[in-house]
Amino acid sequence: MLRIGMLTSGGDCQALNAAMRGVVKGVFSERDDVEIYGFQEGYKGLIYSNFKMLTSRDFSGILTVGGTILGTSRQPFKLMRVPGEDGLDKVEAMKHTYHKLNLNCLVVLGGNGTHKTANMLREEGLNVITLPKTIDNDLWGTDMTFGFQSAVDIATDTIDRIHTTATSHSRVFIIEVMGHKVGWVTLHAGIAGGADIILLPEIPYDLDVIIKAINGRAKAGKRFTIIAVAEGAISKDDAALPKKRLKEKQAKKTYPSVAYELAEKIQNRTDQEVRITVPGHTQRGGSPCPYDRVLATRLGAAAAGLILKEDYGYMVAIKNGEIKKVPLQEVAGKLKSVDPKADIIKEAKLTGISFGDE
Amino acid sequence: MLRIGMLTSGGDCQALNAAMRGVVKGVFSERDDVEIYGFQEGYKGLIYSNFKMLTSRDFSGILTVGGTILGTSRQPFKLMRVPGEDGLDKVEAMKHTYHKLNLNCLVVLGGNGTHKTANMLREEGLNVITLPKTIDNDLWGTDMTFGFQSAVDIATDTIDRIHTTATSHSRVFIIEVMGHKVGWVTLHAGIAGGADIILLPEIPYDLDVIIKAINGRAKAGKRFTIIAVAEGAISKDDAALPKKRLKEKQAKKTYPSVAYELAEKIQNRTDQEVRITVPGHTQRGGSPCPYDRVLATRLGAAAAGLILKEDYGYMVAIKNGEIKKVPLQEVAGKLKSVDPKADIIKEAKLTGISFGDE
Amino acid sequence: MLRIGMLTSGGDCQALNAAMRGVVKGVFSERDDVEIYGFQEGYKGLIYSNFKMLTSRDFSGILTVGGTILGTSRQPFKLMRVPGEDGLDKVEAMKHTYHKLNLNCLVVLGGNGTHKTANMLREEGLNVITLPKTIDNDLWGTDMTFGFQSAVDIATDTIDRIHTTATSHSRVFIIEVMGHKVGWVTLHAGIAGGADIILLPEIPYDLDVIIKAINGRAKAGKRFTIIAVAEGAISKDDAALPKKRLKEKQAKKTYPSVAYELAEKIQNRTDQEVRITVPGHTQRGGSPCPYDRVLATRLGAAAAGLILKEDYGYMVAIKNGEIKKVPLQEVAGKLKSVDPKADIIKEAKLTGISFGDE
Amino acid sequence: MLRIGMLTSGGDCQALNAAMRGVVKGVFSERDDVEIYGFQEGYKGLIYSNFKMLTSRDFSGILTVGGTILGTSRQPFKLMRVPGEDGLDKVEAMKHTYHKLNLNCLVVLGGNGTHKTANMLREEGLNVITLPKTIDNDLWGTDMTFGFQSAVDIATDTIDRIHTTATSHSRVFIIEVMGHKVGWVTLHAGIAGGADIILLPEIPYDLDVIIKAINGRAKAGKRFTIIAVAEGAISKDDAALPKKRLKEKQAKKTYPSVAYELAEKIQNRTDQEVRITVPGHTQRGGSPCPYDRVLATRLGAAAAGLILKEDYGYMVAIKNGEIKKVPLQEVAGKLKSVDPKADIIKEAKLTGISFGDE
Repeated sequence: MLRIGMLTSGGDCQALNAAMRGVVKGVFSERDDVEIYGFQEGYKGLIYSNFKMLTSRDFSGILTVGGTILGTSRQPFKLMRVPGEDGLDKVEAMKHTYHKLNLNCLVVLGGNGTHKTANMLREEGLNVITLPKTIDNDLWGTDMTFGFQSAVDIATDTIDRIHTTATSHSRVFIIEVMGHKVGWVTLHAGIAGGADIILLPEIPYDLDVIIKAINGRAKAGKRFTIIAVAEGAISKDDAALPKKRLKEKQAKKTYPSVAYELAEKIQNRTDQEVRITVPGHTQRGGSPCPYDRVLATRLGAAAAGLILKEDYGYMVAIKNGEIKKVPLQEVAGKLKSVDPKADIIKEAKLTGISFGDE
Repeated sequence: MLRIGMLTSGGDCQALNAAMRGVVKGVFSERDDVEIYGFQEGYKGLIYSNFKMLTSRDFSGILTVGGTILGTSRQPFKLMRVPGEDGLDKVEAMKHTYHKLNLNCLVVLGGNGTHKTANMLREEGLNVITLPKTIDNDLWGTDMTFGFQSAVDIATDTIDRIHTTATSHSRVFIIEVMGHKVGWVTLHAGIAGGADIILLPEIPYDLDVIIKAINGRAKAGKRFTIIAVAEGAISKDDAALPKKRLKEKQAKKTYPSVAYELAEKIQNRTDQEVRITVPGHTQRGGSPCPYDRVLATRLGAAAAGLILKEDYGYMVAIKNGEIKKVPLQEVAGKLKSVDPKADIIKEAKLTGISFGDE
Repeated sequence: MLRIGMLTSGGDCQALNAAMRGVVKGVFSERDDVEIYGFQEGYKGLIYSNFKMLTSRDFSGILTVGGTILGTSRQPFKLMRVPGEDGLDKVEAMKHTYHKLNLNCLVVLGGNGTHKTANMLREEGLNVITLPKTIDNDLWGTDMTFGFQSAVDIATDTIDRIHTTATSHSRVFIIEVMGHKVGWVTLHAGIAGGADIILLPEIPYDLDVIIKAINGRAKAGKRFTIIAVAEGAISKDDAALPKKRLKEKQAKKTYPSVAYELAEKIQNRTDQEVRITVPGHTQRGGSPCPYDRVLATRLGAAAAGLILKEDYGYMVAIKNGEIKKVPLQEVAGKLKSVDPKADIIKEAKLTGISFGDE
Repeated sequence: MLRIGMLTSGGDCQALNAAMRGVVKGVFSERDDVEIYGFQEGYKGLIYSNFKMLTSRDFSGILTVGGTILGTSRQPFKLMRVPGEDGLDKVEAMKHTYHKLNLNCLVVLGGNGTHKTANMLREEGLNVITLPKTIDNDLWGTDMTFGFQSAVDIATDTIDRIHTTATSHSRVFIIEVMGHKVGWVTLHAGIAGGADIILLPEIPYDLDVIIKAINGRAKAGKRFTIIAVAEGAISKDDAALPKKRLKEKQAKKTYPSVAYELAEKIQNRTDQEVRITVPGHTQRGGSPCPYDRVLATRLGAAAAGLILKEDYGYMVAIKNGEIKKVPLQEVAGKLKSVDPKADIIKEAKLTGISFGDE
């Protein structure tokens, strides 16, 4: 008998179901004696032994369905060893569930925080396989995470729609794009949507440069300026602050998010109306795009291949178009950011996009 | 020679280009000696005689294009007779432009405010034909305005995407939908998106009822509650205030918009996380939906029919599926709101939707 | 106890699930003692007593899901009284199932053929309520059927895509649109997609007129011609044939469908390349558009209202924006066609569209 | 003065305009003294010196627009040296135009056939830069061509829609996907759409295997089977024929396309209804997907970089995520096919997809 635990952890994204379907179809293609334990709402389900027994039928028809049939929740890594109100050591509780159910392995779908915990469970002796899930694409060790391209599609659609309304009015439009601490989604959606200015956490911006770009466009007879700003974007001044000072400053902020702050700054220094659009959680929602479905299916099937060979302790990744296994200890705790000197930045600048830095 | 002035005024929306294409194709189908004067940025172009001469070729290929090729701006009706910094009486200036160019008529595409000014120009002796443009669907005298269904489609798509992410997490999601002072877009998108609670300006809400509905869902094992709130929604308490007091209260508000205020109220009274999504101007953008293209084309062609018969002073409307002409003086200054006792509200309540009122 | 049988019959379409959800949510909003018998694959399930007991939970989350959770099949009206291989009189079998299960009523979702059978069951003493389902919009007694607008959206999307490729090449493009014996979908998608020529069953075409329109466009410097042709379109010559002769002629046809035949005719008389696109069954597929979701929900909820009042024998319809009940005997056997003299045809002609008739 | 000739050749696809915009924005970002000669309808414009002078303004706003603003046509490589009715040697004519206009270089966007001619022009001494355009993704030397992902998205959308209608009826659905002689689009759309059977030119199929898969699904209680077949798919029997015999056989075929032939074969050997959908040219149409916009923009900008450095004779390609230059002589005449032993095929088989071969 092959007993597989499975959970999805952290913020949800597109193609989680597609990836799990890939794993389950894969293992059942070679073995009949498989039991799938679906832990509910991420690590929480593993901690409190809250699970459903699932059959291959439960994974039929979910390739195109957004969200996750297991539910998810955020369980911060740094609180894993800190007993909660119930006095529970969460790591020990997870190990207990794993051993009690006599699991052969645990399949974990998640992003950065999730991988730290997954690696810890590996160190504690559990057989773990992970799949790189996040719209942010910030996971080290893989060229691409599933969810990313779907989020780019939605953010681009937002910019496209704003474009038509922008051509009707003379305005500055700011679209705030998700991505946590990195700028991948903003960079790709900004280029795809034809944004005039793209602001990323990795390239701190100079407000003077932005104002100059806006005024330059107005002088050249362009009726509008479109700014794609990452939720984690930061000014050069703030980036130069000591980390502690910066945290204090951010704690005092009264703006709902970065776009509102930027809008006020720009409003104060130009005579153009400024409008804000924040697509927010829609970027995580809906049916995965075909690219993500193929990627998630391939990663899931490859994970099944590892399980069938009892080859554990890896994140399944894609590199140069091929599916690879990457040791979990190499992945955990690392962030993949946009390199400000990457060719894609140079190419974008060649087409006239300003990154607010020069 | 037939000389037609044309302008689009107020907030932009989908199918403005489709409607103008209908007018122009219509008049050219019967006459060759037509000149089209496209005034730039709404009434502003008429005031300052800023226009482009357009040919039928300019209107080819724009059926599916969002925005307006003429640009638009808001020129408040109440300021029309108030001289600006340049000392200009705007109404006289518009009449001057009209007569100087020897126009046969003026085609105006706009919403409520626009129609007040259009009617005034009619009273001043100009030949005016209008087309009902607004995503809000709040124009009296027509069953439907173009832009409305496209906005419903986009708002519904937002709710759909939130739905998938909602099923993954246990949360209350608030989606704020456009519509100015009326609830048409919210009502239709809310039903179409399967919202659990719909809040409209026409049905002031009771916070206790909302909290009860949220808790009721949680007790019934539903993991989330989705609220579609119109940007103009109002609480029963606020609705009961004298108008002046309400204005003072609203002037003091520090929330970016109604969704943020509602979120805080709910957050204070439940233990569920609350998330906000504001699709904003995207609801006005992008290619018009097929429904709006057909409607706008029909209205535009019918306007051409009136022009060819020199039958002026009307808004071209749709009633019970047929295109009708409605005297401008009957339209100007009236608002079409959602009737709280309408069948569609009863039907929605039958399917379990709460309007926060009982 | 309230026992409701439910079935979907004929070709599937969008919003079938949405409509059933409306019915079920509606009856459960007022009563708890309800049993839903979901007959599988249309009347077949009623004939052979093949059903599933469904709870309100089965109808949760299906508002946006295409297809029908009950399955469907075509059971021609004219074979109902003709015993099949199993010797069964199908009508008696259906009555038997109905009475054996002690049903209070039967809710039937279907199109033209379906309504003939539904009316016969009414005549046989069953309590029947029907909902107007068909992409064809050819049901007499209602302004609109659900599925129609979704099909228009998909067919329009097809024309839109062909438009961009058409501008790149010099060609005639023929898009064949569904609609059975009527032209509703083709008419609306043709106008919405900006087709140059629209061919409907209700307006037999003259090939000479079509060729002239194509050549006229080429002379005017237009690079392409787009033809939207209804699957039931017919030439003037064929329409003039005695019905029997026409049937014989059509029986001999070797073309997969009307577009192929038309393409060959045009190819033989112009020097432009001709390309064919047949979106086919995609026009029935995918999530219903918001318009159809609202319509289906309203119709379903209103059907629930009738059931709760035990007011049977009707199709629930929409007329002038309001939900009405129409006696089944008035609906059965009638077809709602496009009126060649309707205003929408005149308006379309004003914008330069040729219907191939003059 | 920098004089750049530009043309788009072969079948059109998405992101042609985006790529040209990238080139033009790129060269103008560093130089003002640039003239763009836009040759009309592919090589034909170069042969007959038919061009428009274009400014950077002509390339503004076309990032999202499908088709090509230059038009395109097919000019078979093998006829280039064969004088036509006008007695013209096409290669000499193209060289003549190039030199007469004193061009510094020629930017060519096209697929396989286009690249053969481009390389010949390079051999004849012209400065040529090419960009890899084709939905087929069959160009050697680049991991990806623009147009491919957009085509995959559309083909997948078709399969998705068929899926919902398939669940309602018991049928076999065949969707024929474009791709010329290779199976890239079919493979990706088939996986993304959850096809049960995928048939590629690179993996000749055995009808017995297909029938077995269909019957196997029916026995397992699945109501339908979805087959994604590439337009170039071939049976094992046909693949085994000598090339000449195969050509003779294919010349005799009376089916409009491969899906119709396959449908008849399956219909003859199962008792399930078979339905065909051929999305056809829609797969080339509409706005490019965000992925293709980013790719095309990057390739275009990189091409500008080469032009500014006067570094000619290359196709600009993407390999392992980075933009590279590939000598034209290495590209011309080579085809990039799906490798039947590639990991993606194995992964797809793991998830239960049949390729009709075993």
